[in-house]
Amino acid sequence: MSDYAAAFSAARQAARALAAVPATTTDALLRDLADALLASTDQVLTENARDLARMPAADPRHDRLRLTPERLRGMADDLRTVAGLPSPLGAIISEKTLPNGLELSKVRVPLGVVGIIYEARPNVTFDSLALCLKTGNACLLKGGSDAAHSNAALLAVAAPVLARHGLPAAAATLLPPERAATEALLTAVGLVDVVIPRGSQGLIDYVRQHARVPVIETGAGVVHTFLDETGRLDYGQAIVHNAKTRRPSVCNSLDCLLLHASRLPELPALLAPLAEAGVQVLADAPALGALAGHYPAALLASATEADFGTEFLALRLAVKTVPDLAAALDHIDRYGSRHSEAIISENPAHINQFLQQVDAAAVYANASTAFTDGGQFGLGAEIGISTQKLHARGPMGLEELTSYKWLVRGQGQVR
Amino acid sequence: MSDYAAAFSAARQAARALAAVPATTTDALLRDLADALLASTDQVLTENARDLARMPAADPRHDRLRLTPERLRGMADDLRTVAGLPSPLGAIISEKTLPNGLELSKVRVPLGVVGIIYEARPNVTFDSLALCLKTGNACLLKGGSDAAHSNAALLAVAAPVLARHGLPAAAATLLPPERAATEALLTAVGLVDVVIPRGSQGLIDYVRQHARVPVIETGAGVVHTFLDETGRLDYGQAIVHNAKTRRPSVCNSLDCLLLHASRLPELPALLAPLAEAGVQVLADAPALGALAGHYPAALLASATEADFGTEFLALRLAVKTVPDLAAALDHIDRYGSRHSEAIISENPAHINQFLQQVDAAAVYANASTAFTDGGQFGLGAEIGISTQKLHARGPMGLEELTSYKWLVRGQGQVR
Repeated sequence: MSDYAAAFSAARQAARALAAVPATTTDALLRDLADALLASTDQVLTENARDLARMPAADPRHDRLRLTPERLRGMADDLRTVAGLPSPLGAIISEKTLPNGLELSKVRVPLGVVGIIYEARPNVTFDSLALCLKTGNACLLKGGSDAAHSNAALLAVAAPVLARHGLPAAAATLLPPERAATEALLTAVGLVDVVIPRGSQGLIDYVRQHARVPVIETGAGVVHTFLDETGRLDYGQAIVHNAKTRRPSVCNSLDCLLLHASRLPELPALLAPLAEAGVQVLADAPALGALAGHYPAALLASATEADFGTEFLALRLAVKTVPDLAAALDHIDRYGSRHSEAIISENPAHINQFLQQVDAAAVYANASTAFTDGGQFGLGAEIGISTQKLHARGPMGLEELTSYKWLVRGQGQVR
Repeated sequence: MSDYAAAFSAARQAARALAAVPATTTDALLRDLADALLASTDQVLTENARDLARMPAADPRHDRLRLTPERLRGMADDLRTVAGLPSPLGAIISEKTLPNGLELSKVRVPLGVVGIIYEARPNVTFDSLALCLKTGNACLLKGGSDAAHSNAALLAVAAPVLARHGLPAAAATLLPPERAATEALLTAVGLVDVVIPRGSQGLIDYVRQHARVPVIETGAGVVHTFLDETGRLDYGQAIVHNAKTRRPSVCNSLDCLLLHASRLPELPALLAPLAEAGVQVLADAPALGALAGHYPAALLASATEADFGTEFLALRLAVKTVPDLAAALDHIDRYGSRHSEAIISENPAHINQFLQQVDAAAVYANASTAFTDGGQFGLGAEIGISTQKLHARGPMGLEELTSYKWLVRGQGQVR
């Protein structure tokens, strides 16, 4: 850690200073940062081009790495959006006066120093920086080496804006794009309050394996939708199509349709919209029988055991036939990743049982799992979707980047 | 992990069942457990005697290990207290209807499977079991080998009570007193939702080093109290004495007095109550000068650098002289463990600055840090005092043993 200890200590000092910065200052800073980003479009794109030149155009990450004038305008808009959100800091979560006269209040405060580890998406740099500053946290940003020039260019835009508003430079630190920096960050016990990995399952597994500081996992979504014997076919058609095809590469997209056996005759109609979208269907034996001759043969295959519990992140859908709700619940418990799960049903008892018993961050009745998103849930912004149960579950907005402390005011009380 | 995988899987199954158990059942179970414990006093004490026989009487843990009829009555009372607390489960934390008609609610749910790792205190067994069951969590209890017979006897009391109320046996599992069980528990990713270590700093460090599942750290308290130039001497006398001597072995006890230099002439009076209690004072040079001849020489020594930042857990107090509030804040930031910190002052600006800027779970003005306790804070019960900022900070009660999930009810909405 020694190579990075100075940077981490500076971040801790900066966090102390940030705790006293008024929300109006932070909001003005974020708006200035939006202006500065647009004014620096040419420099940022030039540096981004250097990164792009190092990555083969066929690499699937190429598009994520690419910045454009339009994307920079989107980033600037996002900065202004965060500036306009109410600050969660200083809110009194609860307060009471104890019988002995002690006045107790539980007050929302920054987490302190937040580490963000991410991959080849330079837009995450300003997104993370904005959400951390808004919540009074110093951030240690560890981007991927693929985006090193882009990230450095973005931090070069941010540094003078921070200085202009009186914030320490260490309020936002870009760590070098080296594995050693990640390891140091993950073991900086006492200096780093939380690390949030934003990226692939491989990154998250690495972080879990190596972290000695608290982590919020933002993991894979193995997402199911169950059409029971009463569920409306039109709802099913719309919801399955939307959840599967809207953005197949995101974590809330549908991976496995669970179908009550009585609905097998309707399966071709249910999946007709998917055939048009070119979705490959991996069906169990009953579903395969129902679909044969009614779904494009080139897009139809037999499901293997490995297809259940897989996050496809592609136009691919597993289909599993179940005899009843209990079997659907068992399947979800066994194969789900506790992210987003849905039932399509007109039976209120089934709906209630599903909502109560499914253990997931977001549990839906008669709606698309594509809604699992901080913006959609009205959080205003999102730093990720937690798949753990500690601290934050599901979409994480500003509040989820805060902690609290207890303030106790007395007049000499002893116990 | 394979040796324990069956036990962990059973706990996960039990957690699914517990999520549907009504609060009235759990409360009745806990009251029955209190009765069963008292009815089994002889058997439990016999097994406890076997554990005690293996530990030298001079071992400082001997007293913690010992059960007595009175202590069993206290444990039974605690079970009834937990039974009488309101259940946090099912509470709607927030709800809203989105413009598209989706009805969103954020509902409090159990964490799932909670692992508790502790040492030679058999009372922690029932305490943990009660708090976990009350919050709908299955618990995996990993006690110390020193208390193996006692813990087994307690679980033998609990098992028939669980069965009588229809709960699965795996709702509360005592893991074997082997290091391998601890390692398996700490790496049971996907089966264990959180591990809470309850014990010494060595245990907590071990857990942090080896855990791949989420952990709530309940760590050491390096606690300061600052008497500024305006603080009342009578408050200082009472608070310093109480915070140091009430229970020196607990984490909220005072370790270091910070004294404004202008108060040096009053230091002998401030510490007079400590002299009577036999507290050893480790003073910096100015404080040593002020105390020489006014504090028992046998109890007075020069402070070394290592004395600052030390949790003494004994009748020992470091004293540091500071020129101003800023120096006190710096000292606390450097040496504190973010547990409990206090200022004694009549200056409202100092009080506000201290409360705002000190980064700790509980920050006090003019009161003893001995109040950092779940019972004192009105939480009804306490499973530990968190020194991290994620999920829970300070005393953890029932709510801190829960998570939440988002329930979304729609009428076919897609995004």
